[in-house]
Amino acid sequence: MKKINSYIEKNQERFLEELFGLLRIPSVSSESARKEDMVRAAEYWRDAILKAGAGKAEVMPSDGNPVVYGEKIIDPALPTVLVYGHYDVMPVDPLELWKSPPFEPEIRDGKIWGRGADDDKGQAFMHAKAFEFMVKENCLPCNVKFMIEGEEEIGSPNLGKFCEQHKEMLKADVILVSDTSMIAPDIPSVTTGLRGLAYMEVEVTGPNRDLHSGLFGGAVANPANVLAKMVASLTDDHNRITVKGFYDDVEIVSLEERAEMAKAPFNLANYKKALDIEEVCGEEGYVTMERTGIRPSLDVNGMWSGYTGEGAKTVLPSKAWAKISMRLVPNQDHEKISRLFEAHFKAIAPPYVKVKVTALHGGQAYVSPITTPAYQAAAYAYEQTYGKKPVPVRSGGSIPIISTFEKILGIKSILMGFGLEADAIHSPNENYPLEQFFNGIRTIPYFYKHFAELSK
Amino acid sequence: MKKINSYIEKNQERFLEELFGLLRIPSVSSESARKEDMVRAAEYWRDAILKAGAGKAEVMPSDGNPVVYGEKIIDPALPTVLVYGHYDVMPVDPLELWKSPPFEPEIRDGKIWGRGADDDKGQAFMHAKAFEFMVKENCLPCNVKFMIEGEEEIGSPNLGKFCEQHKEMLKADVILVSDTSMIAPDIPSVTTGLRGLAYMEVEVTGPNRDLHSGLFGGAVANPANVLAKMVASLTDDHNRITVKGFYDDVEIVSLEERAEMAKAPFNLANYKKALDIEEVCGEEGYVTMERTGIRPSLDVNGMWSGYTGEGAKTVLPSKAWAKISMRLVPNQDHEKISRLFEAHFKAIAPPYVKVKVTALHGGQAYVSPITTPAYQAAAYAYEQTYGKKPVPVRSGGSIPIISTFEKILGIKSILMGFGLEADAIHSPNENYPLEQFFNGIRTIPYFYKHFAELSK
Repeated sequence: MKKINSYIEKNQERFLEELFGLLRIPSVSSESARKEDMVRAAEYWRDAILKAGAGKAEVMPSDGNPVVYGEKIIDPALPTVLVYGHYDVMPVDPLELWKSPPFEPEIRDGKIWGRGADDDKGQAFMHAKAFEFMVKENCLPCNVKFMIEGEEEIGSPNLGKFCEQHKEMLKADVILVSDTSMIAPDIPSVTTGLRGLAYMEVEVTGPNRDLHSGLFGGAVANPANVLAKMVASLTDDHNRITVKGFYDDVEIVSLEERAEMAKAPFNLANYKKALDIEEVCGEEGYVTMERTGIRPSLDVNGMWSGYTGEGAKTVLPSKAWAKISMRLVPNQDHEKISRLFEAHFKAIAPPYVKVKVTALHGGQAYVSPITTPAYQAAAYAYEQTYGKKPVPVRSGGSIPIISTFEKILGIKSILMGFGLEADAIHSPNENYPLEQFFNGIRTIPYFYKHFAELSK
Repeated sequence: MKKINSYIEKNQERFLEELFGLLRIPSVSSESARKEDMVRAAEYWRDAILKAGAGKAEVMPSDGNPVVYGEKIIDPALPTVLVYGHYDVMPVDPLELWKSPPFEPEIRDGKIWGRGADDDKGQAFMHAKAFEFMVKENCLPCNVKFMIEGEEEIGSPNLGKFCEQHKEMLKADVILVSDTSMIAPDIPSVTTGLRGLAYMEVEVTGPNRDLHSGLFGGAVANPANVLAKMVASLTDDHNRITVKGFYDDVEIVSLEERAEMAKAPFNLANYKKALDIEEVCGEEGYVTMERTGIRPSLDVNGMWSGYTGEGAKTVLPSKAWAKISMRLVPNQDHEKISRLFEAHFKAIAPPYVKVKVTALHGGQAYVSPITTPAYQAAAYAYEQTYGKKPVPVRSGGSIPIISTFEKILGIKSILMGFGLEADAIHSPNENYPLEQFFNGIRTIPYFYKHFAELSK
């Protein structure tokens, strides 16, 4: 196993070249014009898995973008690790804020810059290269399966069905995922909880056409003003969500557990400084890490109406829109929350507008215990690279498919993330430190080794 | 004067061809890329005025887009009419809602379709053609001056200075303007009041970059949610504006005058039906026509933040913007209101966001008595064409330059509009009925005739 360092040293330029080929493909799953790029990215992954030493790999159809599946079965008696990742990425706008083009990856300041550098092309690719090492150096201790999908960033709408259809093929003892972050470059962590998600789009219609704001202003409801009032009312003065029934199923975390969580390192001054904000803002009665870790939230992800160009246009717009998403915690059902939101939003609409509410996607929250062999194998692996055991954390993010895996395949996932908060995933200038990329490749084989030992 | 009908009949196709040449020029004043089109439109007007019979006409520089000035002085002892209009137009977006391209005018269903068909290319061009008739038929009873500007839709920021610099040249007894609407095709009206305008843009900044809404949602203020709350708070439950000091200077219209205004024909059911709304919405204690005629208003003209494309992006945006304009009534000063708004908006900003407020443009409200010779000449003229005297109305719209004319040049304006509410000015599918266009040309010479008689 010691050979991993020299293997990385010898091959690091090739590893980066291969990753860059993947990063250059603009596989933005939310844009329907990118269909061909999705297929290109899938084929790139298939070839990469084969090249790394898989016995077989193929691009398989789903009801949406294709899924890449590959495997190397060395002995049916050995435990099987199913590596999950995604080849799709988030949109890149606002494009003008990128310091280098999002799909022309480059290295600056010891980091890889480009859309997907971390989330999740960079992180998932570490698994291909760690696998390659174990195959080439003949030290693979488990059977390995890869499932790399192309719709994670739009909520994996078709992967559940894919899993239903391929339960036998996907049989495994654990699902291994790198699509989350560590607390800091020197503080490894394993994500033991994820929030769920209910993502809605609302449309408020006032008059049947754009009106002159002078001739009609003051006499006809302006849908942009109305939308502002409706959105404003979705949270109260204590930053609690007002959607009726929203908190009914929220898992209440005990004070003891909150005290445990409070031991994780967190510096509020640094947090505010990094975001350039004077004050944080969130639900009364909870601290920052609790607000993202164990409490639900509601955010406007997009809002638009009327004239948004240069200068002044005196228009009273006909319509106003918002994309509003809610992050959910264990025990909240995203479909129920979507229904509650729709009912609430329609109920608060005044009689002088029409309202349309669409649920765009959603997923359940997830919690995983720290007592499993997978968690212990991960802890062991991180310790080999970072010299310390990882901290178990509940992340505010969502990987909706993780709870679906458990439900359909009956397999728990282990979230071994190597991202960092500063990686700007989902934002302009996404990046991934070279050190994290190579540390990931270095760490993963230890997970396989210890997981195989614990499974004996 | 009877000859006007046959003159129109003989020349109507040429009149339309000439107008269409003007409509084809995309002279959108709020778009800085249109500078050359602005000059082209000005030159087109200069040539049109010369061709119609002016003694001279030229494109004159201003600090912004050029001003077209032309004149025909037949006798210094006669009264002088200064025709004011504008060659600039509003932006055309959303472009996809236009049934025919905005700058490719065409005639359908007895109407001229295209940006500027009414506002103000179509309406101003009636004056050129009425003038042509009086010159050609040798019945011009007044001296005539034309001043056609190119920045009306952005608030005429440079015309005040132009007037200051050319007071002597612009000397006149009345300013004649067709840039407003009639109540209905069979109910002529003269606009005796206009609202003022204060147009602001606000920018709310939260974190210094777009964030992942899962990792940060609930812990960091979302500027889009904050903007919604701030905008929502600008009007109260009685639809009164909450900006501190906003109503201090509002002219209170007497109950008697309101009773007079209530005699103007207005059908609420038709109004709602035309706009496809269930209910109107405005300041408590006032009816619809009062809400636009004698009361100020506040409207969001544009609002934008975060991801506005197809599908879902789980972003917590860094910034949110809104364009917010207030219509003002006589005695409210737009510069004072802009200052009050800025102070108020900054005062209500919570500590976890930064706020920037910019005044984009403004203008004062205007009122004009119905006892002047100009009003009586207008009333006489409308009666010749429509068989009835016009109704004096206070419009909700703004032509900021009208009060500036009074202040700088000391000349009252008479607002003889021929537009109709259905003309969709400032909206997609702007149009202007052929009948109104030709009725305007028919009516204007009677104004000149009676104005000259009353001035004797």
